Amino acid sequence: MDRSGKTGSARAKRTNPGPAHDPGAIDTLNKGIGLLEQPIAHGEIVRRGWNLLREDLTLPAAVLYEEALQHNLEWMRRFTAAYGARLAPHGKTTMAPRLFAMQLAAGAWAITLATAHQTQVAYAHGVRRVLMANQLIGKQNMAIVAGLVRDPEFEFYCLIDSAEQVDQLGKYFSQCGARLNVLLEVGVAGGRAGVRNPEQLQSILEALGKWSHAIALCGVEVYEGVLDDEAAIRAFLLHAVAVTKEIAAKKCFQRTPILLSGAGSAWYDVVAEIFSSRDFEDAVEVVLRPGCYLTHDVGAYRKAQDRILESNSVARQMGAGLKPALQVWAYVQSVPEADKAIVGLGRRDASFDSGLPVPALYFRPGSATPQPVPPHWIVTRMMDQHAYLQIAANDDIRPGDMVAFDIAHPCLTFDKWRVLALVNSAYDVVDLIQTFF
Amino acid sequence: MDRSGKTGSARAKRTNPGPAHDPGAIDTLNKGIGLLEQPIAHGEIVRRGWNLLREDLTLPAAVLYEEALQHNLEWMRRFTAAYGARLAPHGKTTMAPRLFAMQLAAGAWAITLATAHQTQVAYAHGVRRVLMANQLIGKQNMAIVAGLVRDPEFEFYCLIDSAEQVDQLGKYFSQCGARLNVLLEVGVAGGRAGVRNPEQLQSILEALGKWSHAIALCGVEVYEGVLDDEAAIRAFLLHAVAVTKEIAAKKCFQRTPILLSGAGSAWYDVVAEIFSSRDFEDAVEVVLRPGCYLTHDVGAYRKAQDRILESNSVARQMGAGLKPALQVWAYVQSVPEADKAIVGLGRRDASFDSGLPVPALYFRPGSATPQPVPPHWIVTRMMDQHAYLQIAANDDIRPGDMVAFDIAHPCLTFDKWRVLALVNSAYDVVDLIQTFF
Repeated sequence: MDRSGKTGSARAKRTNPGPAHDPGAIDTLNKGIGLLEQPIAHGEIVRRGWNLLREDLTLPAAVLYEEALQHNLEWMRRFTAAYGARLAPHGKTTMAPRLFAMQLAAGAWAITLATAHQTQVAYAHGVRRVLMANQLIGKQNMAIVAGLVRDPEFEFYCLIDSAEQVDQLGKYFSQCGARLNVLLEVGVAGGRAGVRNPEQLQSILEALGKWSHAIALCGVEVYEGVLDDEAAIRAFLLHAVAVTKEIAAKKCFQRTPILLSGAGSAWYDVVAEIFSSRDFEDAVEVVLRPGCYLTHDVGAYRKAQDRILESNSVARQMGAGLKPALQVWAYVQSVPEADKAIVGLGRRDASFDSGLPVPALYFRPGSATPQPVPPHWIVTRMMDQHAYLQIAANDDIRPGDMVAFDIAHPCLTFDKWRVLALVNSAYDVVDLIQTFF
Repeated sequence: MDRSGKTGSARAKRTNPGPAHDPGAIDTLNKGIGLLEQPIAHGEIVRRGWNLLREDLTLPAAVLYEEALQHNLEWMRRFTAAYGARLAPHGKTTMAPRLFAMQLAAGAWAITLATAHQTQVAYAHGVRRVLMANQLIGKQNMAIVAGLVRDPEFEFYCLIDSAEQVDQLGKYFSQCGARLNVLLEVGVAGGRAGVRNPEQLQSILEALGKWSHAIALCGVEVYEGVLDDEAAIRAFLLHAVAVTKEIAAKKCFQRTPILLSGAGSAWYDVVAEIFSSRDFEDAVEVVLRPGCYLTHDVGAYRKAQDRILESNSVARQMGAGLKPALQVWAYVQSVPEADKAIVGLGRRDASFDSGLPVPALYFRPGSATPQPVPPHWIVTRMMDQHAYLQIAANDDIRPGDMVAFDIAHPCLTFDKWRVLALVNSAYDVVDLIQTFF
């Protein structure tokens, strides 16, 4: 394995995604974009001169704000740099290769993904280093990865957590003469995947011994987000450090530096602090994997960010924290009762699992500029295609008015959209961002 | 307006969806399909000889069962025929034009949709009669519809429920010289859109009077699914009948027969019974709009179907009721604790808002045939990409095993997939069904 040397060259020499997929074409049949007579390329959209407030988009539409995205990219770049950590943003959040490219351009070391399918999408759009923070399972999924890792420019890691799984991978990758890099997932009782005890670990190391020509153990991975108590998370992270040292002492890693990776979008500060402050005998590369920082939200991740800004010394010195960069805009379609408006925004358009959308801006087409909504406007219910908006009698609101909603869970909002509009501060549409779920 | 004559010819002369969209091409980057080197046409898939149990699909994958779909199509055809009602299945459930075509071939009169975007998708795939069971709002949405209704073969209805909205539609359609068919939505206090009282109705009829050259009132629509009490639903439906008679007496309808439409997927029996048994002075065409009957589920709609089979005399005489026709298959990826397996199936893959997926079938690749899962297997939690499956110590389950899950809400499962596999009883993939959300 070409270790750190490969790392540099893979970034420098991204190859063409190939003829099978044209990443530039926007289908005319995607919701949330304007009337298109024929598929449009990314570059063309600016020339159309579309503007959200001039009603050039069909609502509902998902809107990304360019300035907030750039702010968040720079914020996380500085934060991870302060800890000397690598950033591998979780791409499952957006599944938008244009956003992956922005993250890589802002210094990300790799893109984290969850499945072989997601890895294939990233590769097809030029991503050349992927941490698949999941077990690789099944014939076709292995076939996808085996095909990709034949490209010497492509660096890939996935997880193992059982001897049975190592044997399945070993057989497959031996047979096709490919080599697979893996990280050991360390889990926690009551959590998700990952080894729980020394017996499981020992059996995995023995299985790896049988397949060392095909499977290379490169490091250790945890996902601390299965816990929600800080003390338990700290203990879990220290356990992962201890397991890493134990495997290193047994000389079972086949990569230098050893990779040590953790962090969802809520506890990356604690992971950065603990992983980067341990003394290891061997060189260790710490990789953080938050995904939701890019668009942020007004739900669980805002609460997490409040905690980080309060308790983390690096974050405290950085000024403004992450900014919400994603909203869904929709039309008021009916005001059937004095205290209720019905909005054309549903479970088909925005996440509802971590809190309902929060109305933020109000705009009547033809008026000058969007206004903050009154604080008493609240979404009380969401159906597949509709939201119930609680208002007050005599509020100035009518069918055709536009309302922008902050959302509470970016992952389950992005996956409702095949195209999102990227707008500048004047609400001009400067790009269309495609997703591949 | 060319009334019932148009109805017949529109069905007979479906035109080509046009050059802007190729409905046949399946992108290589969709999840849940096998390895594809280049886009594939529908017709090609059979020749590939893919089989689900031979692991030719990448899991997770959403799977439709051909025999159950055909059973459900025939069941609903017979049910609505027994009441002399028209069927306009709600297409928002699947957003799959191939399934729309199956529904039309099985006698559906129209496809119901919720938005201008969805209407555009259906039109592009050859659907020539659409009931948009929603208010049409906003410049681009009106532009989409105005473009489509220029086709004399295309018959379209949408909803109105306020004078303000009628004025907006009237201005737009007058200006562009197009004509729009509308149904009056009758609502209920505490419900969604729709007129609540005689004053609202009167103001709408006055507004319609101003725009009679551009807006044609063709009937009345309700969505009884905002209520969940049968007595309240019956009262609401009778109110809609009374409103229809009142408007007919005022000679305000511009269509013969008058359209009277109701019914989501839970109460279509009650709607059919009440609407088809009333005496009207004028000819009335009853249109039912269930959507979930096609795939059915094991959640709310199974409960609804149980009630229908028990209480509705037509359904009782029809033998077997609707059958679940949609499952999501996934791999076991880890068995980290004796009583817990982690499955590669998450909120990204299946609905979770009306109940978590229910494990139904278990299959170890290489074995003969899928087996029913033990009754103690239960999904206890779902994250974005993972499900926690409760098992018992010593259950024979390991990474790489396949599990099929019934789902509890088809609408929010379909929208997780851009392609679903249609399989026959031998699990051969006989088609790929694309969605357009």
